[in-house]
Amino acid sequence: MLDRLKKEVCEANRDLVRHHLVTLTWGNVSGYDSDSELIVIKPSGVSYEELTPQKMVVVDLDGNSVEGDLRPSSDTATHMLLYRSFIGIGGITHTHSRYGTVYAQARCEIPCLGTTHADHFYGPVPVTRPLTEEEVETGYEANTGAVIVERFANLDPQSMPAVLVAGHAPFVWGPSAKKSVENAVALEAVAEMALATQQSTLQAMQQGTHSAQELESYVLEKHYRRKHGSAAYYGQPSNSSASTQY
Amino acid sequence: MLDRLKKEVCEANRDLVRHHLVTLTWGNVSGYDSDSELIVIKPSGVSYEELTPQKMVVVDLDGNSVEGDLRPSSDTATHMLLYRSFIGIGGITHTHSRYGTVYAQARCEIPCLGTTHADHFYGPVPVTRPLTEEEVETGYEANTGAVIVERFANLDPQSMPAVLVAGHAPFVWGPSAKKSVENAVALEAVAEMALATQQSTLQAMQQGTHSAQELESYVLEKHYRRKHGSAAYYGQPSNSSASTQY
Amino acid sequence: MLDRLKKEVCEANRDLVRHHLVTLTWGNVSGYDSDSELIVIKPSGVSYEELTPQKMVVVDLDGNSVEGDLRPSSDTATHMLLYRSFIGIGGITHTHSRYGTVYAQARCEIPCLGTTHADHFYGPVPVTRPLTEEEVETGYEANTGAVIVERFANLDPQSMPAVLVAGHAPFVWGPSAKKSVENAVALEAVAEMALATQQSTLQAMQQGTHSAQELESYVLEKHYRRKHGSAAYYGQPSNSSASTQY
Amino acid sequence: MLDRLKKEVCEANRDLVRHHLVTLTWGNVSGYDSDSELIVIKPSGVSYEELTPQKMVVVDLDGNSVEGDLRPSSDTATHMLLYRSFIGIGGITHTHSRYGTVYAQARCEIPCLGTTHADHFYGPVPVTRPLTEEEVETGYEANTGAVIVERFANLDPQSMPAVLVAGHAPFVWGPSAKKSVENAVALEAVAEMALATQQSTLQAMQQGTHSAQELESYVLEKHYRRKHGSAAYYGQPSNSSASTQY
Repeated sequence: MLDRLKKEVCEANRDLVRHHLVTLTWGNVSGYDSDSELIVIKPSGVSYEELTPQKMVVVDLDGNSVEGDLRPSSDTATHMLLYRSFIGIGGITHTHSRYGTVYAQARCEIPCLGTTHADHFYGPVPVTRPLTEEEVETGYEANTGAVIVERFANLDPQSMPAVLVAGHAPFVWGPSAKKSVENAVALEAVAEMALATQQSTLQAMQQGTHSAQELESYVLEKHYRRKHGSAAYYGQPSNSSASTQY
Repeated sequence: MLDRLKKEVCEANRDLVRHHLVTLTWGNVSGYDSDSELIVIKPSGVSYEELTPQKMVVVDLDGNSVEGDLRPSSDTATHMLLYRSFIGIGGITHTHSRYGTVYAQARCEIPCLGTTHADHFYGPVPVTRPLTEEEVETGYEANTGAVIVERFANLDPQSMPAVLVAGHAPFVWGPSAKKSVENAVALEAVAEMALATQQSTLQAMQQGTHSAQELESYVLEKHYRRKHGSAAYYGQPSNSSASTQY
Repeated sequence: MLDRLKKEVCEANRDLVRHHLVTLTWGNVSGYDSDSELIVIKPSGVSYEELTPQKMVVVDLDGNSVEGDLRPSSDTATHMLLYRSFIGIGGITHTHSRYGTVYAQARCEIPCLGTTHADHFYGPVPVTRPLTEEEVETGYEANTGAVIVERFANLDPQSMPAVLVAGHAPFVWGPSAKKSVENAVALEAVAEMALATQQSTLQAMQQGTHSAQELESYVLEKHYRRKHGSAAYYGQPSNSSASTQY
Repeated sequence: MLDRLKKEVCEANRDLVRHHLVTLTWGNVSGYDSDSELIVIKPSGVSYEELTPQKMVVVDLDGNSVEGDLRPSSDTATHMLLYRSFIGIGGITHTHSRYGTVYAQARCEIPCLGTTHADHFYGPVPVTRPLTEEEVETGYEANTGAVIVERFANLDPQSMPAVLVAGHAPFVWGPSAKKSVENAVALEAVAEMALATQQSTLQAMQQGTHSAQELESYVLEKHYRRKHGSAAYYGQPSNSSASTQY
């Protein structure tokens, strides 16, 4: 079974390039096998073109290397903590995609300004607090996971499969490695459009017209439920890639 | 005949990718056969690469499935209402293309700021009112069509082949599925340039210079008539793709 | 000889796609043969993929069709007037490229903010006045050429090979069809960077720092002369595509 | 050995196209061989598609041509001065990449707003003072190098491998030609995201919320040291392209 997961995670990492989510080697995808409680993750600093399923690294939930000759992604400890805390997720994508990172750098949540957002994220995409100096110096990557989990104290990681780490970049997840990449694609599109919407609305404000308007909550509800959960009617009944997230 | 329409609609859906109008599966094109009064539309949640003419779904104007094993696009009821209300249109394209969606999210019409716009849209591209909570909860997709039709009470869908649904995204149409995609391409280009024009003019305003200027009405008239109607002289006499829209 | 020119003009039109300067069929390139005083130009409304040298249209300086079965570009009368007025130019490119068009729509000249600009355009890229209603209704395309020529009363078309038609889009020229496309590529890059520079400087202004600064005139002089004229030292001595414009 | 360097420099110049860093022929890469004290550089005005290792030009540190039939890049004197002043660098990339050039034109340093920046540049990317008229008219390219070196009086070129020449564009370097291109890729991404971050923060400021925040110095320290120097733990131990810069 891990062979299949290694293949999927390898493919998902390569999809980052196809979807223009990565520059150089700035991104990694992992997948989780809940039966064996093992994580398959990209090796650190290896270019996407060179990746093969055999080069994927397998680690357990304590970070012990189980298989693979290469060093795992330097962000592995963050992935680990998320798999341990957000029960049910099967894949995590971390990139420095342009507009997701812009919001992370601006340390602003991405407001829900339209149905594109509502189709994927059930509300504003949250931003973490900055790490303290101590958190950075002792166990930086694990603490990055910890501030994400802290931010989700009152949030449901199933309906909000993304977060912006302040001053850093997004982490995105989903029921599988492949779905976490799709959510990362959605996040980037939604961030790009939100920024331009806020800019165009800023113009209107300066001309005394109106301010950016959050999507009505009943439209958010409707669009999210069209695609997610038991009453979803988007996609094909048997089409797991569209209709049956979570 | 529907075989030809299925092929055209399939091709038009795939063109959405070629023209960079879609992310993931966020868009659909339909075509209408006025003789049989049947609609051919993309199946829901199926990726563009997998599409074949055989996978297209055929529905009648009441939404009854006539042919096809797959579920039609979740936006089918919106397409249906537009075909019933805007007599003469032969194709509809719905996407969440970046800049068209930005204007829809900003809930601002796209002003006519240049001849590129005038070549395709006879005036500002309108935006609908938001749907009420009741409209969202009862027959959401049909009501999306209804607010579009309501917005066109005093507009001609032949010379204004696009609308922005507030908080959602554009719907664009034309005499055929293929032409509706071309109009969606034009809309996206025009929206991108309008946003940047308004931003650059905002700068000028803040420096006390001048404000964004709508295109002179006589230039709008001239450019629209160069390409559309009986006095059009753009394109080749026999070239239906250029000279004989409507 | 016209066979060679037809081939070059066909190739130059296809280069518009390669350089991302055109959407749909929104652009045309012509070339001029000074011996025969004939213009070779793109046929109207034909897609770039379908173009062949045989489909190019030949017209004389009075607009009479000399060869070709297809209707010439609807902008032919503008090209004609420029060839008659700007002695020595050998090619003209007209596109609705994004950022050049944004400046045309904003009706603002493109200021010279850096050496990239100075390498190609000897000063700010000018914008025409708007056409009057009468000019639009009687001989619109010829009058578009006339307002361009009027704008160049005190400008040298050799060192300033581009203009923005107010509310419309750029016209760009050069010693050959191929070079006019290269200048159109340069214009688009320069326009995109100028807009972003003015935006970033606007931010600084609002924070009380400083305002956008035009390039020092002695740097403009230096960079333009590195690439143009008898003292040019950019490119290879025999490399006509780099060192010997005009 | 120069054969290997010629091949690497040729490849690095072609990578500029692959990474979308160049328009037309606006960019050049050189490599340095410290044993022979020779520079291998792109020939001037030659398109990237035509480049072969044999066409590369070899010059010494005084600018004397050592090998090659073509004229070296017109920026060769700038490269020379940097190799003489910044001991240990092995490659230099000069481009007019969009966002790097925007910051150079705005004459603003690129602030360190996130970890993407910190991963590559140890602090804000500096901007030079403008050249004086005399400096432009006498030995322009060498003086461009001189103002860069002057700007680095209190900066370490190993940990800050890039500079913006005021009103011009970036120069970027690294331990090899290939690494200098990777740093140029990083610079462009970082510049694009910084500009958008500053714009989005400007909006927040105008709404009274907050201002752009520089990355905490301890996070800058952490991220730079994750990738650089003896305690680096990013990438593979034997993977020179990731873990062992300088």
